[in-house]
Amino acid sequence: MSQQTAADERPFRERLRSQLVAIACRTVAAEGLGALQARRIATEAGCAVGTIYNVFGDIDGLILAANEVTLDLMGEPLRHALAATEGMPCGKRLLALADAYTEFARSHPLPWRAVFEHRLQPGRELPERYGEKRAKLLSLIEEAIAPEVPDTESRRRAARALFAAVHGIVALAFDNKLQPFDRVETEREIRFIVEAAAAGLVKAL
Amino acid sequence: MSQQTAADERPFRERLRSQLVAIACRTVAAEGLGALQARRIATEAGCAVGTIYNVFGDIDGLILAANEVTLDLMGEPLRHALAATEGMPCGKRLLALADAYTEFARSHPLPWRAVFEHRLQPGRELPERYGEKRAKLLSLIEEAIAPEVPDTESRRRAARALFAAVHGIVALAFDNKLQPFDRVETEREIRFIVEAAAAGLVKAL
Repeated sequence: MSQQTAADERPFRERLRSQLVAIACRTVAAEGLGALQARRIATEAGCAVGTIYNVFGDIDGLILAANEVTLDLMGEPLRHALAATEGMPCGKRLLALADAYTEFARSHPLPWRAVFEHRLQPGRELPERYGEKRAKLLSLIEEAIAPEVPDTESRRRAARALFAAVHGIVALAFDNKLQPFDRVETEREIRFIVEAAAAGLVKAL
Repeated sequence: MSQQTAADERPFRERLRSQLVAIACRTVAAEGLGALQARRIATEAGCAVGTIYNVFGDIDGLILAANEVTLDLMGEPLRHALAATEGMPCGKRLLALADAYTEFARSHPLPWRAVFEHRLQPGRELPERYGEKRAKLLSLIEEAIAPEVPDTESRRRAARALFAAVHGIVALAFDNKLQPFDRVETEREIRFIVEAAAAGLVKAL
């Protein structure tokens, strides 16, 4: 009997989980990370606040689940950019990835921002699946530079550094941090850092 | 008579301004930008909330004044790093600037974060003096790359891109965004992007 109950329970719990994640994503997309509050999500889902904690552990768990959806969405145009530049020089491939990333950030401003705004409580570990999705995205950059950087550890480091560099340019540009936002100028800054880094890639490693 | 009143009033207003900025800086350093609220600053200064709006226009005005102090503080180690590497190759000078920047961020985490967290209300313009201080900081990078990049516009763009790239690495590292924070690894990522960019500087422009 208890096995039967467990079998019946799982699909409901999974459906509930999906529903809560969908509401969380919608909320972040419309109003940003600050609007993602347990009480509000529970009200919209028609469940108790305790149910959210039951399913996700804590509010961080729900935020990370919503951010995972954003990582999945982001992967699509990035994989497309990489496939479209197969066989081209590393600088061109990196630029295609950077452009796809910028366009994703521009067209999904609040979910994109939420991925970087969210900070885990000290001591709270990142779920394994989240780490895997992140690693998969970074592996797209690793693939682009693989011919130039055969050593695995150096390649991972270079990929992280390149991602963070482009992300820094995009994030500061969208926030008007170094000058009022200028799309063409932002593209030029990205092109500069990517082409300079690609040109100096072998020398620097 | 009215001239006399104006003359007497000015020093008081300036003293009041300094006092409010000092309280704001202390508050940000202890608890971050979120704690910088008009009511709280007014209580601590023993003035009315309206006085803050009177002196700074709005709360953004007070936040920007506190952030200006952070820009001033940041300038000191950066100027020192540049002076200490006078005559050295561009890559070395950029690395010294990047290291000084990272160390500043590490030792002033909340004021540093406040500079980038704060977003102006749409339509609100940045005070001229803030823009000047920012331009002065970016000019330190421009100075480091001047021998390699003679064209002024390209040099300004490269300086912005290099700053944003290093900032991106530091910001994502401190927030454990690409992997758990690792000081040595962060230094290596910065070294990679700076040396690669320096090596490719001429080629890319």
